[in-house]
Amino acid sequence: MAISRKVKSTLNGASWVRRMFEVGDELKQIYGEENVYDFSIGNPDLEPPPSLKKALKELADHPITGMHRYMPNNGYSETRRAIAEYIKEESGLPFTENHVVMTVGAAGGLNVTFKALLDEGDEVIVPSPYFMEFKFYIDNNGGEIRLVETNEDFSLNLEEIEKAIGEKTKVILINSPNNPTGVVYSQESLEKLGALLKRKSRELGRTIYLVSDEAYRRIVYDGVKLPNFFQFYPHTIRVTSHSKDLSLPGERIGYVAVSPLCEEADELISAIVFANRILGFVNAPALMQRLVAPLQRNSVHVREYEEKRDLFYNALTSFGYQVVKPQGAFYLFPKALIDDDLAFVQELQAKRILTVPGRGFGKPGYFRIAYAVDRKKIEAALPGFKEVAEKFRA
Amino acid sequence: MAISRKVKSTLNGASWVRRMFEVGDELKQIYGEENVYDFSIGNPDLEPPPSLKKALKELADHPITGMHRYMPNNGYSETRRAIAEYIKEESGLPFTENHVVMTVGAAGGLNVTFKALLDEGDEVIVPSPYFMEFKFYIDNNGGEIRLVETNEDFSLNLEEIEKAIGEKTKVILINSPNNPTGVVYSQESLEKLGALLKRKSRELGRTIYLVSDEAYRRIVYDGVKLPNFFQFYPHTIRVTSHSKDLSLPGERIGYVAVSPLCEEADELISAIVFANRILGFVNAPALMQRLVAPLQRNSVHVREYEEKRDLFYNALTSFGYQVVKPQGAFYLFPKALIDDDLAFVQELQAKRILTVPGRGFGKPGYFRIAYAVDRKKIEAALPGFKEVAEKFRA
Repeated sequence: MAISRKVKSTLNGASWVRRMFEVGDELKQIYGEENVYDFSIGNPDLEPPPSLKKALKELADHPITGMHRYMPNNGYSETRRAIAEYIKEESGLPFTENHVVMTVGAAGGLNVTFKALLDEGDEVIVPSPYFMEFKFYIDNNGGEIRLVETNEDFSLNLEEIEKAIGEKTKVILINSPNNPTGVVYSQESLEKLGALLKRKSRELGRTIYLVSDEAYRRIVYDGVKLPNFFQFYPHTIRVTSHSKDLSLPGERIGYVAVSPLCEEADELISAIVFANRILGFVNAPALMQRLVAPLQRNSVHVREYEEKRDLFYNALTSFGYQVVKPQGAFYLFPKALIDDDLAFVQELQAKRILTVPGRGFGKPGYFRIAYAVDRKKIEAALPGFKEVAEKFRA
Repeated sequence: MAISRKVKSTLNGASWVRRMFEVGDELKQIYGEENVYDFSIGNPDLEPPPSLKKALKELADHPITGMHRYMPNNGYSETRRAIAEYIKEESGLPFTENHVVMTVGAAGGLNVTFKALLDEGDEVIVPSPYFMEFKFYIDNNGGEIRLVETNEDFSLNLEEIEKAIGEKTKVILINSPNNPTGVVYSQESLEKLGALLKRKSRELGRTIYLVSDEAYRRIVYDGVKLPNFFQFYPHTIRVTSHSKDLSLPGERIGYVAVSPLCEEADELISAIVFANRILGFVNAPALMQRLVAPLQRNSVHVREYEEKRDLFYNALTSFGYQVVKPQGAFYLFPKALIDDDLAFVQELQAKRILTVPGRGFGKPGYFRIAYAVDRKKIEAALPGFKEVAEKFRA
């Protein structure tokens, strides 16, 4: 056999997002792309803000000697300084450029963070439903994922988290705004989580790290202010990217920021930089590091996503779907109208609507809609959602 | 303890290139950057060719909608097609875009290839001296490195390779032009290697894969034509990047190409694409994929590196250094004039010359000079090399 046994077994159980994507490809070939309503993948449709395009043009017109060369593995100090200043202001904590490591997106950032932190068999607690790639990122680096259920409204269930914490717990991984639910965890729940982690770390004589995946941090609605994780718990590591706020997912540009209050912060940062090198990322792409540095306070026009959420959410609830109203990201995670989420997703497919069954996020009985698409696609798909609802509500 | 025990133990034994880099930083602070001759790191000093700069300007002036979005994990078909056409012409083999996976540099390419191929405990044979990062790339993915000595002139020692091949051998990793020696393996030695691998795979009833790290493939001198690895052995995987030929090391753009003759090529490619996704690379940077597509036949002006090699090589040999004349890459790997390569490197440091001891490449008693630097630096450093030679030749 050519390939690794472990990879082979995982390949055979390919991702649901991927499977739906492939079904979508077939449907598009049959019906034409414009007649298929693809809500399977979270690939932002908004263009980067004009400031990004301007910065790219400026650099292309006036290239800087050496701008494509290697730099230190943690990235340009200029970029790290810009980010540190922004986080310092946001959190009130004494961040410097030394607390920031530029990474190949948030996915790269999570891998280097886990490589730095995990010993073989260490557990990472993840509230579910969850972004299933986390499972791989943890496994790649010797860890074990430990899922804990969230509440009915997908908020954090502190009792479940407390029960899951044990001798092997090294990390809790929190993703807010959440993929797939769009839920933003409340200030209160994070305060409680911080207190719980402090108490448990003390009891166990072992620091639990809070890794906060904030890939969607700028995509929040209803005037919600995303609580700042650094304020609730000292041993916090933020992993994020500019994939969503600046609409640059294909460019793989993100960062890891380690709280200055973190235990052994210096050594931890050295380990993250080292992992960035040896896992083969080496450094975040040079050109993008330069472009994003001055854009830390810029974003795509989030209101456009919010309008799509409103349109979609209001329509679905009027058709009788049960949906927790998301306050961020660009996903809806409604309850399927029959128990079998896969069968339900196939009913939608018959209307040329592509979604992903909840089992792809550890939550059968639900399905995910990614709505970072053209508004017209949403409008055109709504009658299909309605027909399916009518069929099963009867 | 915050960080992983394994990372901690490796961090403590940090890389020699890195240590020399840090020594260099101190020297630069004392003597001023212009008075330190830094040959410690292979960071190409040549700018990308004008065609690259032109393509960047063109794209910045006329941005394409969606050009920063996600694309399939293997990369744009346009880019993969351009590469496949080039390799097809070069090798005479029926490459298509499906045989090519765009990666985050060659370092990313090696990691995804090893992830796809290796089971826990599988061995990867590596001729030594060698680029020490290989050790991490193999270990990250569950493999074990198995070093084999090369001949006195750093050519492949087929007998040693044959002896090293056993039940656990899954891969042989070849790097030509070689870092740190600059040696280009001959057509004849590769033919013999191909024959050996065929025979051994048959004997063992298990396919051995040839992974060919061709990061320096365009940097060859003296009119040497780099033999095409695909022609010698069917189970060959090329891993390379545009870091050196287009001088883009900071941008992290490379690719993996799997021979169409490879056993289970389709499954192997699927596994590589999957590994690209789950290791957190996701895809190679979008903008760079677009820029390099039409530049497969472009290069920096290699003659400039060749002139630097000539200058350095001729001077060193005239001072009495023993050096295998390199025919590629931008490294010289002379014998130290005393047994202790570290002590010798420190003698050079006293002349404000930074090099890396051979032990950093598995070969004590030698030292590496990276000469992808301004010619003036080389000229200014030569008297120091001469003085050290005079001290020890006496």
